[in-house]
Amino acid sequence: MQKDTGSGGTSTSSGPTSRFRRRKSSNEVPPEDDKANGSHLLVNDHNKYKSMLIRTYSTVWMIGGFVLIIYMGHLYIWAMVVVIQIFMAKELFNLLRRAHEDRHLPGFRLLNWHFFFTAMLFVYGRILSQRLVNTVTTDKFLYKLVGRFIKYHMVTCYFLYIAGFMWFILTLKKKMYKYQFGQYAWTHMILIVVFTQSSFTGANIFEGIFWFLLPASLIVINDIAAYIFGFFFGKTPLIKLSPKKTWEGFIGASVTTMISAFVLANILGRFQWLTCPRKDLSTGWLHCDPGPLFKPEYFTLPEWFPGWFPWREISVLPVQWHALGLGLFASIIAPFGGFFASGFKRAFKIKDFGDSIPGHGGITDRMDCQMVMAVFAYIYHQSFVIPQSLSIEMIMDQILMNLTYEEQRALYMKLGQIIMERQFGES
Amino acid sequence: MQKDTGSGGTSTSSGPTSRFRRRKSSNEVPPEDDKANGSHLLVNDHNKYKSMLIRTYSTVWMIGGFVLIIYMGHLYIWAMVVVIQIFMAKELFNLLRRAHEDRHLPGFRLLNWHFFFTAMLFVYGRILSQRLVNTVTTDKFLYKLVGRFIKYHMVTCYFLYIAGFMWFILTLKKKMYKYQFGQYAWTHMILIVVFTQSSFTGANIFEGIFWFLLPASLIVINDIAAYIFGFFFGKTPLIKLSPKKTWEGFIGASVTTMISAFVLANILGRFQWLTCPRKDLSTGWLHCDPGPLFKPEYFTLPEWFPGWFPWREISVLPVQWHALGLGLFASIIAPFGGFFASGFKRAFKIKDFGDSIPGHGGITDRMDCQMVMAVFAYIYHQSFVIPQSLSIEMIMDQILMNLTYEEQRALYMKLGQIIMERQFGES
Repeated sequence: MQKDTGSGGTSTSSGPTSRFRRRKSSNEVPPEDDKANGSHLLVNDHNKYKSMLIRTYSTVWMIGGFVLIIYMGHLYIWAMVVVIQIFMAKELFNLLRRAHEDRHLPGFRLLNWHFFFTAMLFVYGRILSQRLVNTVTTDKFLYKLVGRFIKYHMVTCYFLYIAGFMWFILTLKKKMYKYQFGQYAWTHMILIVVFTQSSFTGANIFEGIFWFLLPASLIVINDIAAYIFGFFFGKTPLIKLSPKKTWEGFIGASVTTMISAFVLANILGRFQWLTCPRKDLSTGWLHCDPGPLFKPEYFTLPEWFPGWFPWREISVLPVQWHALGLGLFASIIAPFGGFFASGFKRAFKIKDFGDSIPGHGGITDRMDCQMVMAVFAYIYHQSFVIPQSLSIEMIMDQILMNLTYEEQRALYMKLGQIIMERQFGES
Repeated sequence: MQKDTGSGGTSTSSGPTSRFRRRKSSNEVPPEDDKANGSHLLVNDHNKYKSMLIRTYSTVWMIGGFVLIIYMGHLYIWAMVVVIQIFMAKELFNLLRRAHEDRHLPGFRLLNWHFFFTAMLFVYGRILSQRLVNTVTTDKFLYKLVGRFIKYHMVTCYFLYIAGFMWFILTLKKKMYKYQFGQYAWTHMILIVVFTQSSFTGANIFEGIFWFLLPASLIVINDIAAYIFGFFFGKTPLIKLSPKKTWEGFIGASVTTMISAFVLANILGRFQWLTCPRKDLSTGWLHCDPGPLFKPEYFTLPEWFPGWFPWREISVLPVQWHALGLGLFASIIAPFGGFFASGFKRAFKIKDFGDSIPGHGGITDRMDCQMVMAVFAYIYHQSFVIPQSLSIEMIMDQILMNLTYEEQRALYMKLGQIIMERQFGES
């Protein structure tokens, strides 16, 4: 496929969710080449409709499964993310694998997975440790065990990594150096760029499913809208890197995404199941005060508003303004994740990263923008959303988790002293 | 040089501090090749003595400068680390640079430095933010400014990174894709493996110069001891990767390093300048209670101890036992950093990473084990050394830094309540 420079448009895998698709052709050829062929080619293209059917079918199944998992809860959503991460790692590890060299290096593939699971223990250990503590507080023995685990978590991961590092050096084979160092670097790039980035999704889930579901949906909506707008109105090429993407698709998708973000946040923001943070690792029902962000504010529409509009008053959740920030990012910057991936594929003459989903190519191909978005959603949430009152709770958790009873008392005394001193200093 | 398979031993740059050097030859040739040549070659080798003189001369200058900087204080030591990091980055960025390609990509080199300074802002922002706060507490305006900076530190760095990422994608040039993606990956590897690792040194310095100086000295001592033991007793090759290294050098160096660690910790541990943590960014004199780790314990020697031994009682600082841990790592595991670097150089047929220090090669060549050691020293200190009482202080700092006055009061009330409840629950 990857050398096909014709314009028949038989591509089955850079599918409907590819962004800002140009109308004329679905092949990755430089724009000069397919300008020559008219846009009429689309009509003659039977394969295109067949492959669209396959894609639609697998898409419906994916969406159904996804909704079920959302309903099941935080732990299951996180498990889904982990499974996706394992598939992505598998696809990417295999990408630069050369069977001939590997035959001379027994156990060398295993090393990749050793590093993968070390990274997993490290990243998820950090994200989930507090929740793990909260889950076992009732059992004194488990509580102590988990406390130990957290205290020595970093040093454990470090020694696992060092073990892999020494394993790598001790199994270096003459004449294989270049291949082995190349693989080592590649493994690290995957773990950092793909695994670590996508792990932010895990953190978002436990901050409230809302913070995972809204960004992820916006990426999908932007994808589909770009495809549709590009399909019907696409004319002006957007970027040389991806000749199928057009300005019409890009702009149409941006507007759609912004509107969807605003509306979707209003809908999702009304379910406590989605807005409450999950502070432990159980899967039971959630109740919480969702805080001011999710409390509707009512605006009366001005008099001059057209009479046919059904409502005289609208309710807006403050979180909807944040949703616009996420929408802006999802439509303007996240697509660069896709450009990066397609540039990478062109540089190394790869058609797709894998073939895990029928009609969609590899899982990694569908996740490029999602990863960029997950990191942004996390940082946005941490920097602009978490209210000050929550940070009291975070420090409180730290105190209860890290300090012994005596130390907690000592801290209490010390803090009281400082507050007293300040009071006297001011009055 | 790198293709020279003779045994004349004219190497000037993989110098005296290379580890576990074989006695016979200083060329990087496979062991089979130089077994044939007798060890008598050393005697005929005039260049070797000349180059040793150069190396000794630059070593003396380096040590002198180093002692002066230690005396000047934490900020200056940190500045030295930053300068070394910039030199290393420069050496490594240039390593894979191809002038021909760069001529077609104006501004492409600048992107590397954009990422470098973003990484610097991020890493040192995290390490030094608390100290920065402590430095400006007296000035209310500056205090607020720094507070803002810290609050939006992560999101600022993120957008700097994203800007670089978009810059990269928008300047991708046809037929250059592979070179550009290669450079992008290489830049990231350098920033993660070299820059981030070496930045732990910065964290160690402010925990107390001791925690920077002892590990760094142990690496140097291990290097020199391995050279000397290898020079005089080296016979049995240690690892195929570095044919000059011998078991005799390795074992001799380990013993020397362990003894040095124990003795050196006793000496360094007696200066408050070295043991006190620096909690702000000033350079003034330091006074602190160095804690139980640095309080000498006295042991009376048993009766049967030989009479010629000058002391009847010896004083041991508890930190000396920790020093043994550091010594063990410095002599057994840190050398793998060197093996890795020399394996890497062989794989890519590079003689040295640069030529910044006369007679020593590049700065990077001298820092390979130091980086591995810095990370270990940091993690060891965090996991095993920081006493519980210090973590009260850390949480206290967090409270005073992140919370407003009202929030501090709220936290105080809440903590009081919890302590009260527990007291009643128990009694």
